[in-house]
Amino acid sequence: MASNRAVTYVGPGEVQVNEIPFPKLELVNGPGVHPANIGRKCEHGAILKVVTTNICGSDQHMVRGRTTAPEGLVLGHEITGEIVELGRDVEFLSVGDVCSVPFNIACGRCRNCKIGQTGICLNVNPDRPGSAYGYVDMGGWVGGQAEYVMVPYADFNLLKFPDRDQALEKILDLTMLSDIFPTGYHGAVTAGVRPGSTVYIAGAGPVGLAAAVGAQLLGAAAVIVADMNPSRLEQARSFGCETVDVSQGDPAEQIEQILGVPEVDCAVDAVGFEARGHGDHAGHEAPATVLNSLMDITAAGGGIGIPGLYVTDDPGGVDDAARKGALSLSLGTGWAKSLSFATGQCPVMKYHRELMHAILRDRARIAQAVNATVISLDEAPAGYAEFDSGASKKFVIDPHGLISA
Amino acid sequence: MASNRAVTYVGPGEVQVNEIPFPKLELVNGPGVHPANIGRKCEHGAILKVVTTNICGSDQHMVRGRTTAPEGLVLGHEITGEIVELGRDVEFLSVGDVCSVPFNIACGRCRNCKIGQTGICLNVNPDRPGSAYGYVDMGGWVGGQAEYVMVPYADFNLLKFPDRDQALEKILDLTMLSDIFPTGYHGAVTAGVRPGSTVYIAGAGPVGLAAAVGAQLLGAAAVIVADMNPSRLEQARSFGCETVDVSQGDPAEQIEQILGVPEVDCAVDAVGFEARGHGDHAGHEAPATVLNSLMDITAAGGGIGIPGLYVTDDPGGVDDAARKGALSLSLGTGWAKSLSFATGQCPVMKYHRELMHAILRDRARIAQAVNATVISLDEAPAGYAEFDSGASKKFVIDPHGLISA
Amino acid sequence: MASNRAVTYVGPGEVQVNEIPFPKLELVNGPGVHPANIGRKCEHGAILKVVTTNICGSDQHMVRGRTTAPEGLVLGHEITGEIVELGRDVEFLSVGDVCSVPFNIACGRCRNCKIGQTGICLNVNPDRPGSAYGYVDMGGWVGGQAEYVMVPYADFNLLKFPDRDQALEKILDLTMLSDIFPTGYHGAVTAGVRPGSTVYIAGAGPVGLAAAVGAQLLGAAAVIVADMNPSRLEQARSFGCETVDVSQGDPAEQIEQILGVPEVDCAVDAVGFEARGHGDHAGHEAPATVLNSLMDITAAGGGIGIPGLYVTDDPGGVDDAARKGALSLSLGTGWAKSLSFATGQCPVMKYHRELMHAILRDRARIAQAVNATVISLDEAPAGYAEFDSGASKKFVIDPHGLISA
Amino acid sequence: MASNRAVTYVGPGEVQVNEIPFPKLELVNGPGVHPANIGRKCEHGAILKVVTTNICGSDQHMVRGRTTAPEGLVLGHEITGEIVELGRDVEFLSVGDVCSVPFNIACGRCRNCKIGQTGICLNVNPDRPGSAYGYVDMGGWVGGQAEYVMVPYADFNLLKFPDRDQALEKILDLTMLSDIFPTGYHGAVTAGVRPGSTVYIAGAGPVGLAAAVGAQLLGAAAVIVADMNPSRLEQARSFGCETVDVSQGDPAEQIEQILGVPEVDCAVDAVGFEARGHGDHAGHEAPATVLNSLMDITAAGGGIGIPGLYVTDDPGGVDDAARKGALSLSLGTGWAKSLSFATGQCPVMKYHRELMHAILRDRARIAQAVNATVISLDEAPAGYAEFDSGASKKFVIDPHGLISA
Repeated sequence: MASNRAVTYVGPGEVQVNEIPFPKLELVNGPGVHPANIGRKCEHGAILKVVTTNICGSDQHMVRGRTTAPEGLVLGHEITGEIVELGRDVEFLSVGDVCSVPFNIACGRCRNCKIGQTGICLNVNPDRPGSAYGYVDMGGWVGGQAEYVMVPYADFNLLKFPDRDQALEKILDLTMLSDIFPTGYHGAVTAGVRPGSTVYIAGAGPVGLAAAVGAQLLGAAAVIVADMNPSRLEQARSFGCETVDVSQGDPAEQIEQILGVPEVDCAVDAVGFEARGHGDHAGHEAPATVLNSLMDITAAGGGIGIPGLYVTDDPGGVDDAARKGALSLSLGTGWAKSLSFATGQCPVMKYHRELMHAILRDRARIAQAVNATVISLDEAPAGYAEFDSGASKKFVIDPHGLISA
Repeated sequence: MASNRAVTYVGPGEVQVNEIPFPKLELVNGPGVHPANIGRKCEHGAILKVVTTNICGSDQHMVRGRTTAPEGLVLGHEITGEIVELGRDVEFLSVGDVCSVPFNIACGRCRNCKIGQTGICLNVNPDRPGSAYGYVDMGGWVGGQAEYVMVPYADFNLLKFPDRDQALEKILDLTMLSDIFPTGYHGAVTAGVRPGSTVYIAGAGPVGLAAAVGAQLLGAAAVIVADMNPSRLEQARSFGCETVDVSQGDPAEQIEQILGVPEVDCAVDAVGFEARGHGDHAGHEAPATVLNSLMDITAAGGGIGIPGLYVTDDPGGVDDAARKGALSLSLGTGWAKSLSFATGQCPVMKYHRELMHAILRDRARIAQAVNATVISLDEAPAGYAEFDSGASKKFVIDPHGLISA
Repeated sequence: MASNRAVTYVGPGEVQVNEIPFPKLELVNGPGVHPANIGRKCEHGAILKVVTTNICGSDQHMVRGRTTAPEGLVLGHEITGEIVELGRDVEFLSVGDVCSVPFNIACGRCRNCKIGQTGICLNVNPDRPGSAYGYVDMGGWVGGQAEYVMVPYADFNLLKFPDRDQALEKILDLTMLSDIFPTGYHGAVTAGVRPGSTVYIAGAGPVGLAAAVGAQLLGAAAVIVADMNPSRLEQARSFGCETVDVSQGDPAEQIEQILGVPEVDCAVDAVGFEARGHGDHAGHEAPATVLNSLMDITAAGGGIGIPGLYVTDDPGGVDDAARKGALSLSLGTGWAKSLSFATGQCPVMKYHRELMHAILRDRARIAQAVNATVISLDEAPAGYAEFDSGASKKFVIDPHGLISA
Repeated sequence: MASNRAVTYVGPGEVQVNEIPFPKLELVNGPGVHPANIGRKCEHGAILKVVTTNICGSDQHMVRGRTTAPEGLVLGHEITGEIVELGRDVEFLSVGDVCSVPFNIACGRCRNCKIGQTGICLNVNPDRPGSAYGYVDMGGWVGGQAEYVMVPYADFNLLKFPDRDQALEKILDLTMLSDIFPTGYHGAVTAGVRPGSTVYIAGAGPVGLAAAVGAQLLGAAAVIVADMNPSRLEQARSFGCETVDVSQGDPAEQIEQILGVPEVDCAVDAVGFEARGHGDHAGHEAPATVLNSLMDITAAGGGIGIPGLYVTDDPGGVDDAARKGALSLSLGTGWAKSLSFATGQCPVMKYHRELMHAILRDRARIAQAVNATVISLDEAPAGYAEFDSGASKKFVIDPHGLISA
């Protein structure tokens, strides 16, 4: 039996690399595993040698102590790997296949999965629809910032790359298929982006930048990315985006300078509940800021895609309303303009195949756009810290040194 | 020149029937007319003898004094009429045609109208996209609770009924095409109602009941209408809806008794910003109640259609937040379930033709569902008062005594 | 081990009820089984005691000798049953569940299944995308006009009815969920039927009648069903359809008498390649007749749904072109009107759940519409003969006498 | 009164530049004008000084004598111009505006125009839905390969460019908005092209190349263009397309060499009824060749967009069937794969605004892709001849020498 090492949550602000059990085709007890999931057999699963696994902004919510994540939780839901073992019920995959793992865990058999809504699968999380690897309150599926990980319902979940060598060559792009590329793209799709659209994306972190690449792929005429972090804005400009610095005041004015009109067709919230104020209020948490701002600057008839996470409970919220997840939204502004809003986890499977083809045929250069930066498993704690400080990098953990090789 | 009489707003709680000028093919000055619209030529318009014109719940917002409507404003945006005069630029209509008038005034020439978004026409309201007859801050187009009214861009806006006699025979159904039938239906459509859906509609006023008829026409398996007014609930049951009495506590429990599960596929907010609390809080205004409740009871992946009006300023709001139109929404609840939300004025033209065919072929009995009740023009003030008291009736003004005849 | 009896194809015009092996969770060799499928393990499968199984018009193509179906082929792809045994990999079903079986066999794991295209599953038929039980050239999955049948990928394929007693009470409606109700409905959906539409359906056999019920459920204002068989037209009128007798000449004229215009918004071809001529040519096979006629009578901008089967080879075709499946289509007529066309097997899973809810809540009475007629397994050969003679009945085989009981 | 000169059809194979009347805001009698349109007042119209007007492949059908076009017909339906005179009913345009004219003439007031189906407007062509400038059997609206042209329903039809100088700078791209760019793009859209798709486009003439640019803008992963003319294939490769030479045999094999599989997700027929055979049959007209080939190479579940023109009567057809527009289609092949088909004139207005934004922001370089080649009005006859000989050029007539200047 091979050993296994993984990034685990220790407490607010702290992660460590620790030994954890080698995965089995069964969900065994451990930190965060839901009682109803303990002992769940996974003959439909596969064990993967992790090729790459990325640090995600939503991991940061846990690591900052903004959730009830238990000590010892194995982190990581952005996983690409090579199959080393298959359950007896897997029919259409083989040992040696290199595959992308959608961060949403899905059974492929419930009514939501059958219509492609894999983000709200009914059979994987005893608490509510939807699950993910290595995440608090998601059923307890072990995270993949590790050397090895188990993926249930492998025939359904895994996206096999057509060619192993080609996959390894483009691995820094393909690794983004497990979460942020589809997530950003979903934001753009649900905002209604189409050829010729003008698009405003709030947030130039990896999801915002992925939304920008997604909007470009969808044919947007102009993609404007907003943030208050200069290096992230610089990153956005590096692949043809326009930018708005929200610390410099009203986005509408800056938009008008770019487009000639103070509004856009479509908007994406790639920030979520830890939003900070704009202009004079920059730097203070103000959870409704982004959404209210997007209603202001989206043209009548437009759409707002909200891949940014909003929560029902936020123990670290700035006030009572925030702590229970209540936002003070100027819905009348949106109503007067007939806006529409789409929320929720991206159902990765809806998009990963088409985005894979776009990557493999050089139509989308996502790694460059998000500044993919390879680190070893042991460097993960430092990566978490640097990412938290606002570095405009997307950290890709390479647990076996396969990329460097 | 014929005379003209109309329902006008006098002040909070008061409307009167007064003489007003006979309409011209020009927007002349008068109460509420936007300066930039004064003197606007309307050779593209038609003058209609009003056959029917209905009192709408959104008129009540003005009459209750919840807006800045000026004294003397001529009310009425739900209009059906017979053409008595045509501007020289009208090509495809004739004097004598009986037509439905969409409440949204639309030019048919701007980019929004060209894609069917007639609720946010860019050329009819100098202040913002979208307009309506007889409404505050909508450009000043004269209302149609009158004997005669002018309809601009007649070739584009008017829906001609195929046969005059048939139209007059079904006039109590057809009169609902100008607003509430499409508006309720739009709520159902944007909530994603389709064959087999389960639907919850908040509010059993005319728009809620119209949404219920719309949901039935769309093939919904179960339509549940909620209110706290027993006679309105009784009305909903009269055409096959299930009902929830929100004054009796948690809607989810009542839904479970009906469906076996405590949630629905689709939800419609037919209440808007003057919402009142549920259960123990029944009777007190609580503007976010309905939307928060709908997020609770809509199943993951569902849609929420919001035809109910939300405003940017509400001088009569219960607190500071309400007065500026801010709602305290538990967006995290919706986000966790991947819900989507659609807001805004219904673009009537998108739906009125298909609903007309449904009426003419006896597929939809909207008049009966909303309890259409004919009154004379002089009875309009009494009708306003009775409707405001919660009567489960949809008042249809018959200014020329054509229906009674 | 229980015994098993089934309807088998003997030769042109002849079917018999014979002993066949009791199903195993494996596809064993037998008439029509594709070599590559022999011995295929099905631990993902379930064995069902057949509650009902219907005779389908597409079975007739085989029985009439219009295909290369081998002697001994077990017929039947319209199956409803009770689970009596489950493979070890089935997780979300139980022995005793009563379920509808979609006629398309689908793996739930290929790219087509993942987007709901279960009619063109890539993993069940070695010859081409798509499969079905008991059908020639479909991989050899054993048919279900039998006492027992094996359903592979049971978690994915089976639609469990929520309540056993309720299911048995409505079994004559629910039995139509395995094929013809979704198939007819798919024709209506892909023709673009929506509230207020006028619809023309060519063919008043069970699929045509199901398309009519589907169009009604979708809110169509007028549903016109065409055939040359008086009893089938009578059946269509029994549930509110208008009818056209194509033996009486030009459908356009008859449509004009019904609608006032000689065209419809949407058309459905529920006939397929064994079409016969209209008017003076009535009775002679003329495979392009229906499609050319539908292009004539569909209004510009309309859609044509084609659930009727067209084949690539038809040994019994009337001429050389027909024998190789070539149709002489007046495509210019359709092009000038910007028509669109949708073809192919209905992906039953896309629709069966919503149609089940419509049945269970009494929104759709499909059994009555298609004149469901219960027979025993031993009466199946007589049922085939009577159906082939044009009887306006949908035969429902009750192999265990459960319905009669 | 200024003079006016135009390209007119003289007889099979011959066009001339002749004096024609200066346009009025009325449709006066002339070659090809429908009697019911003679004297039609157009106060809703505008007179344009033609900035550019392109020669179209569909003009060639007339010039080759494949239609009943009358002698003296003024040709040209691809028009960009500057407004020099406005009818009294035009409200939202000004003299001096530079505008693109959609080739479809549309009233903006009928039920089809209201839903964006401007290609089948009901009010402009007395014979059937849909019209165009300078085209046989389209009502007789005077063509625009001229110095001046009248555009009816100007507020509705014209797309004003935001800035005159910018427009003139990009005029060779913007001139493609009147027809071929939207037409090709419509082919791609209706074929279902989306990010990551593989696309096959039959025909490398201007519409095929425009479809290729459209497919790229929609995010296609691979765009394969097929033809038998080497210079046209070379042109396709110049902007990143792959190519198939159908004179070299089976497209499927060539596709497999490019993609690794012998089929594509989406296909576009940019050839139409004058198709020629493939492989050994290359060079002989075989009108069903393209469509039958597309059914072969499109993957199950795919879509086929058919912007290529198919006609109801073709006096020059190769045989009786072709002369009446009947095609021998292997529909069974398409049916077995659940393909869908979309036909008809492109409704330009549905796309021209978004494509304009794509051009103005340098997202689409259509002029370069189709090899836009400027000629004077007097060079038009030579341009027709060169285009007919298969030159891989899109001829842009510059009647006033504005571009050269």
